[in-house]
Amino acid sequence: MRASQYLLSTLKEIPTDTEVVSHQLMLRAGMIRKLASGLYSWLPTGLRVLRKVENIVREEMNNAGALEVAMPVVQPADLWQESGRWVQYGPELLRFTDRGARPFVLGPTHEEVIIDLIRNEINSYKQLPINFYQIQTKFRDEARPRFGVMRSREFMMKDAYSFHINQASLQVTYDAMYQAYNAIFTRMGLAFRVVQADTGSIGGSTSHEFQVLACSGEDDIVFSTTSDYAANIELAEAIAPANVRAMPREDMRLVDTPNICTIDELVAQFSLSVKKTVKTLLVHAREDTGYPLVALIVRGDHQLNTVKAEKLQKVATPLTFASEDEIRLTIGASSGSLGPVNLPFPLVIDRSVAVMSDFVAGANTEGKHFFGINWERNLPLPQVADLRKVVDGDISPDGDGTLQIKRGIEVGHLFQLGTKYSEAMKVTVQREDGRGQKLIMGCYGIGITRVVAAAVEQNHDDQGILWPETLAPFCVAILPINMHKSFRVKEVAEDLYQQLQARSIDVLLDDRKERPGVMFTDMELIGVPHQLVISDRNLDAEAIEYKNRRRGKKEIVPLSTIINFLIREITATQ
Amino acid sequence: MRASQYLLSTLKEIPTDTEVVSHQLMLRAGMIRKLASGLYSWLPTGLRVLRKVENIVREEMNNAGALEVAMPVVQPADLWQESGRWVQYGPELLRFTDRGARPFVLGPTHEEVIIDLIRNEINSYKQLPINFYQIQTKFRDEARPRFGVMRSREFMMKDAYSFHINQASLQVTYDAMYQAYNAIFTRMGLAFRVVQADTGSIGGSTSHEFQVLACSGEDDIVFSTTSDYAANIELAEAIAPANVRAMPREDMRLVDTPNICTIDELVAQFSLSVKKTVKTLLVHAREDTGYPLVALIVRGDHQLNTVKAEKLQKVATPLTFASEDEIRLTIGASSGSLGPVNLPFPLVIDRSVAVMSDFVAGANTEGKHFFGINWERNLPLPQVADLRKVVDGDISPDGDGTLQIKRGIEVGHLFQLGTKYSEAMKVTVQREDGRGQKLIMGCYGIGITRVVAAAVEQNHDDQGILWPETLAPFCVAILPINMHKSFRVKEVAEDLYQQLQARSIDVLLDDRKERPGVMFTDMELIGVPHQLVISDRNLDAEAIEYKNRRRGKKEIVPLSTIINFLIREITATQ
Repeated sequence: MRASQYLLSTLKEIPTDTEVVSHQLMLRAGMIRKLASGLYSWLPTGLRVLRKVENIVREEMNNAGALEVAMPVVQPADLWQESGRWVQYGPELLRFTDRGARPFVLGPTHEEVIIDLIRNEINSYKQLPINFYQIQTKFRDEARPRFGVMRSREFMMKDAYSFHINQASLQVTYDAMYQAYNAIFTRMGLAFRVVQADTGSIGGSTSHEFQVLACSGEDDIVFSTTSDYAANIELAEAIAPANVRAMPREDMRLVDTPNICTIDELVAQFSLSVKKTVKTLLVHAREDTGYPLVALIVRGDHQLNTVKAEKLQKVATPLTFASEDEIRLTIGASSGSLGPVNLPFPLVIDRSVAVMSDFVAGANTEGKHFFGINWERNLPLPQVADLRKVVDGDISPDGDGTLQIKRGIEVGHLFQLGTKYSEAMKVTVQREDGRGQKLIMGCYGIGITRVVAAAVEQNHDDQGILWPETLAPFCVAILPINMHKSFRVKEVAEDLYQQLQARSIDVLLDDRKERPGVMFTDMELIGVPHQLVISDRNLDAEAIEYKNRRRGKKEIVPLSTIINFLIREITATQ
Repeated sequence: MRASQYLLSTLKEIPTDTEVVSHQLMLRAGMIRKLASGLYSWLPTGLRVLRKVENIVREEMNNAGALEVAMPVVQPADLWQESGRWVQYGPELLRFTDRGARPFVLGPTHEEVIIDLIRNEINSYKQLPINFYQIQTKFRDEARPRFGVMRSREFMMKDAYSFHINQASLQVTYDAMYQAYNAIFTRMGLAFRVVQADTGSIGGSTSHEFQVLACSGEDDIVFSTTSDYAANIELAEAIAPANVRAMPREDMRLVDTPNICTIDELVAQFSLSVKKTVKTLLVHAREDTGYPLVALIVRGDHQLNTVKAEKLQKVATPLTFASEDEIRLTIGASSGSLGPVNLPFPLVIDRSVAVMSDFVAGANTEGKHFFGINWERNLPLPQVADLRKVVDGDISPDGDGTLQIKRGIEVGHLFQLGTKYSEAMKVTVQREDGRGQKLIMGCYGIGITRVVAAAVEQNHDDQGILWPETLAPFCVAILPINMHKSFRVKEVAEDLYQQLQARSIDVLLDDRKERPGVMFTDMELIGVPHQLVISDRNLDAEAIEYKNRRRGKKEIVPLSTIINFLIREITATQ
């Protein structure tokens, strides 16, 4: 590609309204442009990377025996009504009617459509197992689209759906997908971790996430310092404390705490350990409990894990917190005064709270706290559950090592869905013994557009992007100095350009009438891994300058050996 | 690919509700499945063909210097309001609101989005010319989706948009696209014609369509028998008749014509030549004419060309016919009684009508016709225009040869849009002299999904599809007879399968436990160009059977030379 016939569209300044470095660099490198909130166009440089991601994914999916298909973006609402997700999915599901007033959705995912497709095509165990995938546009009407293409509304996804006669067969394909994902993200040169994950609204049992490690990640992922244990924080179990509850040493007493609204203020003013305090959170109860609200209690220094809370029988799903108005209406005080004593709702306490003694909590009266509260003395021990997020230093759930928490960007997700969709949509297949059976299903996603952002998030420096070799928009840049004045520079540049093109190497010849400084800055910004600078001065010595974007170091290489030198550099880093 | 791990999903019966053979064969060959009206899923066999089409288009667009981008399917309404098409586009433009009640459309085309994109990126003649393309999902809410993926609502399109400083530059890129399209459809092995076309609602001046010739085509295309002239019938000029109007020979008289409703009935009952009759059609007039309706008159054996009629100044756009109620209200008779004499509306007559004499027309009174009507005697000669569709045998507009009409499927379209969009959306660029200038634009589409249907429409026989080599889902099929019983057959089949795969040849090994008849029928239906039948009988003679799907003929080929034989066959047909 000649830069003069290309659209680099690089930006010097950091664009406003950008929070993460990948969003900034993708804009500055001329990869993407915002069309509207959560909607992005891909410029040529971005598209080149996107296609490389897509091709790696396609090759590995094909290698793993998956069959490519393509399903419509626009899906009839009746399938979503049939699966039950028309009601469950919430406002992220964009709904509309066509010219005939028939209801449709813009597909955020394709379980319903693939089930509808295969229930007409597959009826016997003989056709199983089978695994379909597509690489295609999806739409989720996010409440807060952010971070560029990391969390956009329209995005490209690889989604795969496998079908099986039994759990053993599902496990075989699930393992094959696990290996394929490992191969995909390894080929992309990304630092990633596989973690156990919650299955969430998509349903099913076993699930793993592929997380690219990056400070800007929206997910907390948890590892054992010594074992293989790795999980999304949503799923990570906070195991029961080893210690037993100490005997009460204080009497319970009501203390005036005017102007104290937070636990921080409470511990500061009374010189308490935060581990002697609790947080009481009111959430809506399931209707059949007979109560409007349920109180969930975690230790003052812990955070509620809402995914765990949502699994409690008493709690309405999706989990919603009582509003300040509801709290005032039911207890006559603000949320800062909540506590377990005299609260007219069922309580569920975290395992860590169950072993507390002589602790402090709000008195459900404005400006008062109880001190010296003890379970089974001042109030009965309520239901105990794992309610909190794990924290750095917790014992690993497998008992081996302690936990450490990192930030990750979810780029892939594997689910064992089991029979959830085949039951809802009534899909049976004939077994070998002639009897009918519910189809067993797995599904496997990769966020194609998000992978590009994650790669940038993980690979950049002050000058711009440091593309992994397999994802770079161009593999080599030729930067001729004063090409439009020096015939010799032009001749060598054009000759190298032809030679590299003949070898099918993605090469960008910067033949713009720009100053060298602009050329260098642009190539660093868009992150071309191998750069050849051609100048009269070096040509006088029959040499050219090679720069490796990642190593940074420059080398003077004889012109006669530059092609072989370059090929060695390229293959060494791949 | 092993058939046992693939989804062939062929159908024996011709599916109901299918009008054209491509729709039937694509369903029967397991290429597509209907999800809802105008929405189709692509099964693995169809997807393989679709990807081949896509790759040929991408390669030739890249060769022609176009830059690939990707724009969102979901587009903000304000851009359509800015271009004016929010009002003009009609109900094919699917409109909806997001969760924040903001209006959006599902993109049927991307002129607005690309203009919005480049007006921020391109500001100087130095960046021009430039040509962007994408291969992407589009949606048009067709009133009557039909013929499978030939006219579906969701479809895949390659759309390209080029930008220029002047008309000469546009012409260069337009010509390059013309050549690229020729290369694309030639590589696909399609019989096609390029025709001059109307620019329609998309606007602009020059336009060409690439039409695949097929009886089921929805377009009439017109050729000269001797010259290069070729046009869509919408555009084809019916040149003025060479003869002058004959002198009147009859008096005008009012004749009772009870129970006559059609021209056919009129000519039959009065033994008239149809060439002595006229059709009078009432359409809505433009408001500034001061009349509600305009009468358009063509000869009794001719058809009104609505595209030509729409270009008349007096006629409201889009062209709409007066309803039967409106006609009765304004003239007090039905549409079958319409005629030019005493009609209280402006008349526009076709060139052929202007040379008629002593002709017959309705009297604007129920059950009466005027006979012996003559222009400039019984009524003044009204505006004369080219209003009719050309017919077989008309003189070619270039004066060279006569016209012949064929049916075509439009698979590609080139437009010179000029400044239509840059004016509406106020895009200027700086010229070399420093002054600002409206950007000049071209656009170029290929219906990727429609190409697949057109290829089938043009390439099939009673047994199924006859794929052009470059589009076939598989290049070679290996059909082992009794593979699951004969170790020798299995060994040879597996060995050939490995050898062909190693040569990157798309090969399907039919290792299903099916009878030979089922295997043969399926391979004929999905149209694998080269088929190798492996049987014990032929292996006894160290040979296998080769069948060429298109030639039909079978040959017995020595096993030792089969690979070279096959490679010769494959390269010979490419």
